[in-house]
Amino acid sequence: MLANVFRGVNEFGIEDVEKPRAGIGEAVLRVTLTTICGTDLHIVRGEYAVKSGLVVGHEPVGVIEELGPGLDGFSVGDRVLVGAITPCGQCRACLSGHLSQCGHGAGYEALGGWRLGNTLHGAQAQYVKIPFAQANLAKIPDELSDEQVVLLADIASTGFSGAEAAGVRLGDAVVVLAQGPIGLCATVGARLMGAAMIIGVDGDDTRLAMAKKMGADVVIDHRSEDVVGRVRSLTGGGADVAIEALGTQETFENALRCLRPGGTLSSLGVYSGTLQLPYDAFSAGIGDHRIVTTLCPGGKERMRRLMELVRSRRVDLSPLITHSFALKDIREAYALFGERRDGVIKVAIRP
Amino acid sequence: MLANVFRGVNEFGIEDVEKPRAGIGEAVLRVTLTTICGTDLHIVRGEYAVKSGLVVGHEPVGVIEELGPGLDGFSVGDRVLVGAITPCGQCRACLSGHLSQCGHGAGYEALGGWRLGNTLHGAQAQYVKIPFAQANLAKIPDELSDEQVVLLADIASTGFSGAEAAGVRLGDAVVVLAQGPIGLCATVGARLMGAAMIIGVDGDDTRLAMAKKMGADVVIDHRSEDVVGRVRSLTGGGADVAIEALGTQETFENALRCLRPGGTLSSLGVYSGTLQLPYDAFSAGIGDHRIVTTLCPGGKERMRRLMELVRSRRVDLSPLITHSFALKDIREAYALFGERRDGVIKVAIRP
Amino acid sequence: MLANVFRGVNEFGIEDVEKPRAGIGEAVLRVTLTTICGTDLHIVRGEYAVKSGLVVGHEPVGVIEELGPGLDGFSVGDRVLVGAITPCGQCRACLSGHLSQCGHGAGYEALGGWRLGNTLHGAQAQYVKIPFAQANLAKIPDELSDEQVVLLADIASTGFSGAEAAGVRLGDAVVVLAQGPIGLCATVGARLMGAAMIIGVDGDDTRLAMAKKMGADVVIDHRSEDVVGRVRSLTGGGADVAIEALGTQETFENALRCLRPGGTLSSLGVYSGTLQLPYDAFSAGIGDHRIVTTLCPGGKERMRRLMELVRSRRVDLSPLITHSFALKDIREAYALFGERRDGVIKVAIRP
Amino acid sequence: MLANVFRGVNEFGIEDVEKPRAGIGEAVLRVTLTTICGTDLHIVRGEYAVKSGLVVGHEPVGVIEELGPGLDGFSVGDRVLVGAITPCGQCRACLSGHLSQCGHGAGYEALGGWRLGNTLHGAQAQYVKIPFAQANLAKIPDELSDEQVVLLADIASTGFSGAEAAGVRLGDAVVVLAQGPIGLCATVGARLMGAAMIIGVDGDDTRLAMAKKMGADVVIDHRSEDVVGRVRSLTGGGADVAIEALGTQETFENALRCLRPGGTLSSLGVYSGTLQLPYDAFSAGIGDHRIVTTLCPGGKERMRRLMELVRSRRVDLSPLITHSFALKDIREAYALFGERRDGVIKVAIRP
Repeated sequence: MLANVFRGVNEFGIEDVEKPRAGIGEAVLRVTLTTICGTDLHIVRGEYAVKSGLVVGHEPVGVIEELGPGLDGFSVGDRVLVGAITPCGQCRACLSGHLSQCGHGAGYEALGGWRLGNTLHGAQAQYVKIPFAQANLAKIPDELSDEQVVLLADIASTGFSGAEAAGVRLGDAVVVLAQGPIGLCATVGARLMGAAMIIGVDGDDTRLAMAKKMGADVVIDHRSEDVVGRVRSLTGGGADVAIEALGTQETFENALRCLRPGGTLSSLGVYSGTLQLPYDAFSAGIGDHRIVTTLCPGGKERMRRLMELVRSRRVDLSPLITHSFALKDIREAYALFGERRDGVIKVAIRP
Repeated sequence: MLANVFRGVNEFGIEDVEKPRAGIGEAVLRVTLTTICGTDLHIVRGEYAVKSGLVVGHEPVGVIEELGPGLDGFSVGDRVLVGAITPCGQCRACLSGHLSQCGHGAGYEALGGWRLGNTLHGAQAQYVKIPFAQANLAKIPDELSDEQVVLLADIASTGFSGAEAAGVRLGDAVVVLAQGPIGLCATVGARLMGAAMIIGVDGDDTRLAMAKKMGADVVIDHRSEDVVGRVRSLTGGGADVAIEALGTQETFENALRCLRPGGTLSSLGVYSGTLQLPYDAFSAGIGDHRIVTTLCPGGKERMRRLMELVRSRRVDLSPLITHSFALKDIREAYALFGERRDGVIKVAIRP
Repeated sequence: MLANVFRGVNEFGIEDVEKPRAGIGEAVLRVTLTTICGTDLHIVRGEYAVKSGLVVGHEPVGVIEELGPGLDGFSVGDRVLVGAITPCGQCRACLSGHLSQCGHGAGYEALGGWRLGNTLHGAQAQYVKIPFAQANLAKIPDELSDEQVVLLADIASTGFSGAEAAGVRLGDAVVVLAQGPIGLCATVGARLMGAAMIIGVDGDDTRLAMAKKMGADVVIDHRSEDVVGRVRSLTGGGADVAIEALGTQETFENALRCLRPGGTLSSLGVYSGTLQLPYDAFSAGIGDHRIVTTLCPGGKERMRRLMELVRSRRVDLSPLITHSFALKDIREAYALFGERRDGVIKVAIRP
Repeated sequence: MLANVFRGVNEFGIEDVEKPRAGIGEAVLRVTLTTICGTDLHIVRGEYAVKSGLVVGHEPVGVIEELGPGLDGFSVGDRVLVGAITPCGQCRACLSGHLSQCGHGAGYEALGGWRLGNTLHGAQAQYVKIPFAQANLAKIPDELSDEQVVLLADIASTGFSGAEAAGVRLGDAVVVLAQGPIGLCATVGARLMGAAMIIGVDGDDTRLAMAKKMGADVVIDHRSEDVVGRVRSLTGGGADVAIEALGTQETFENALRCLRPGGTLSSLGVYSGTLQLPYDAFSAGIGDHRIVTTLCPGGKERMRRLMELVRSRRVDLSPLITHSFALKDIREAYALFGERRDGVIKVAIRP
């Protein structure tokens, strides 16, 4: 089968590799749609500890091709969505409700529940093998298209979780720092949960416009405006929740400074170095702040809930898919996405 | 009346000042017992922005001397305990449940609910005026002595809140980094909430011994042992909760590294500079960590609950009061406490 | 001043009574808009233990006429909204976060925080005195009209709390049993919090139509349909949350039977007799169910948050005000509202 | 192998049946210790819909005899404890955190996660087959005996969950109505979580004495005392939490009447008929009450946590095992336990 294989720093592309077979508790999907994640850019640039020869990609939509022994309630031919995280449901972390930190057959030292395109072959391929399939195959309602659900696998689940982990309440003021794909989904999530004021921050005109389209009440251009001062003024003394969605010192620190006493910083960005917690913005007792982090929640029940939100038209993420490519043209897709050309937000990849 | 007045860097001591009078909603107490807090050391050293002329101290036990207009349910002569934080109960923060962040008559920019010995005259005096007395006078049950309740005003309320804010659950493994007065109370709090393993860390033999006495199952001497390695080994991969109770980069960073994925760092220490969040110990998505901070919860209902724990013999904090002084000898008490002489943990001050 | 005074069973109407004066911590408002609550119908019918001579009404919008001593941050002339419940913020219940159960100056045996038009003179008058004004006067943003905020005082706060107390989560299926004013607001609340499927149940065509307008995805007419069977089918085995908003055995029992295992019944209706918990619908351990009840949350911070939702156009309750009356015509208003004539949902009363 | 087989109303006893074999994901244990649950009495009396031919019992301690395919991290010979509920970890309920309501391979209509001795052969036998073994085999620390852990499988997990589901907080007043095995464990659980006052209610001298031994501060004999009046007096207006642990109208109603406004009734008893919620004790809005129910939480992580509490000597349940029998004498054990003879609380059964 054809698959996008990582070979080394900036060395990757379509190869003909062996089609996977399903073992106990596993399923093989024929991939019908997938996408490229910002994390995949880090992988192909060699910034992550991923083995040469790995098939990249962790956001599969597909059709069940083969079911291994020990599965119940699925049929070959079912259309399914699989989250980026594939929890086993049966380890210490999963049984504690930390599905994202799944460490099947191991203690908590394990690598977490992200396996596809990380420790197992991924979804930028014609076929992909799903581990712990009983916990991870979410049937797609007939009335929903592949395009309508593919972004739920990762960015919507992650972005929404930024609002959920913070515990956004009715009437809250929420600021979302950076309006890339994850930040835009955090904006949607805050809106879904009943925030009364949502402030989107970015420095890119396309993304600021998209932020307004996806639910921000106010946008702040960090190139020309004082982010912290503006947020504190708009909110009468600080936001209830600040969601960090880029992974830089600046966005992290601004998020902290935007908060009211007792406010919550929900951190979604992946940082690339040591962060500073400045004394004047963080000192226990001064602010009663909370900092929460969340890795993309997965599992079939999470995917089912997110699909229900799409089915009932609470959410329409389709404006975020700005471009589409065939699997064979995947290097072209990576180039466009990596260089943020042509107003790209997310690309669809069709095997 | 006599009171301990702050005048400038290391300038403080007993002066004869005017006795306070109760205005609307206020009460005046005749102080029968108080203590010195680590924070008071910072104040008399001039490290906090406190005005010259202020009476120091925020942990009063006393008898009601005068009741201002607008109060209900109290009588002159009642024995009462008042928390270090005196929330109004009626501002935006209080009505949201953030009593510690009280900002009466103001927005969230206010200084928080800590007033006694900070923005108002404090308790190291013969008399002290209590603002928002309706919300802050907690009657002391007859069977409890002043000594049994004085530490509830601040260090017990704060230390216990370290465990409460983290949400310690039955069977948790909890590590408490530093076993000073607050850390010892955090140890007691974790024990009260049902942690199955409590690990106390310090570098002082007296405090390590006291930690065992107050409920730690294991103690680690950071002078000779690898704190993180030992905690990870004892807990089979990381503590559920790490409570930081000193306010240094080392304890903060160790706390973070001691956690299991999905674990919570509860930060009680007051930091004196910028903190580092190292990349390998904190990166969103890698660990699903939470960092929570709490300022000492106050208000009469908090004090009532804590006194109930003493009354039912769940808690005995008396071993922590190692020394006793008359108010007139308060400089001597500060010297002993500040230099940590003679195995001092807390001192009692009798006006 | 003119006021609607309760005298006995079905004896009530406009009288000329003394204008109130503000004592310590109190404020007097010139009422500019109010409404009639279903509870007021019970009162004038003599079904509640309310004293003869009481001015009825608990939903005031007005202008500050007089401020008593001890208040801070308000000015005569400020436009304000006051919730139906007026918590003191300083008693045991309030300091525990149970503002609705306020028992100022008393133990928990007190009557709860509902005072206006219950134990104190109410809002169907030209002037009304507000107790604990510091905690209860919520300034109305200039851009909002009286009509836009009056329903927040009670039915919106109560209806939304039905969803909040149940902890509605993104993607939940919620059924709301009965679509009167409270049920319609519960429908709005469930929508605001991100439920994916909202099912409205009633037996009145006008109300079923209004339910769809206010956010129900599906409506069930209990006159012709099997409520429980339909809900279980629509939700694939049971709703995550069922909100009871009428106060009858039938709606309560249906709510219970509509739930999935682990689901939550949020009970808002005021019952008039003993309820049955049938064995086959409720037996501990069989269902892991929760039943939660909430009295209308009050206080100025609650009102502020709700007004923010209106200001940001998340909520528009104006379709619910179907009729308007002058204060002098209040008996006519009670008649129309009590008999549910002319498709009435809520009436506005202008003093 | 020998096993206690249910055949019909009061027809049960030791038979020689086929030894089970492990399929995919299953394990077979050689049972070394088990016990009899109150639920088993209902089963042998024919009060539950259990099939003739079923092996009874749901509290197994044993040694792994055989491991089916698809398991990881276990070895034949490991000593393990298995909870009464055996969740799959991979269905909609489990992935939502409702492990007790597990409905593997099915929607929420399933029977819940209780399988052993209910829908599958149980533990009163020489061997027992465990479904979803990956999620359910909890290794027993070497230093703990079988006797120290056997009660964790059901009554301790259930009893503690009564306190956990209610959210007992530091300083709470908790009343536990009925001090049978489950109620005694609820008493222990409330104590573990930091309740300041625990009131045990029963009408049996042995059980009242045991309640004091297990942590009750006060006991009330319902034969001679006014339960509600006494609780309201002791708690100054009502308990924060009331735990019902018998399953009768009287205990349920008393629990409700013992609560303060905003208090929580945690219902553990299994009711045998319709319950009444009296108008004067329950009416939405009057009390802001919550009623929570919980079925015994299971899964290996739950068992691990409970064993940690025993290992650290927080809990010693051994006084509750008052009698011991060989498997062959099980009818004698049922007779003693069922008739509550000789001060029996729990019996140990050794295959």
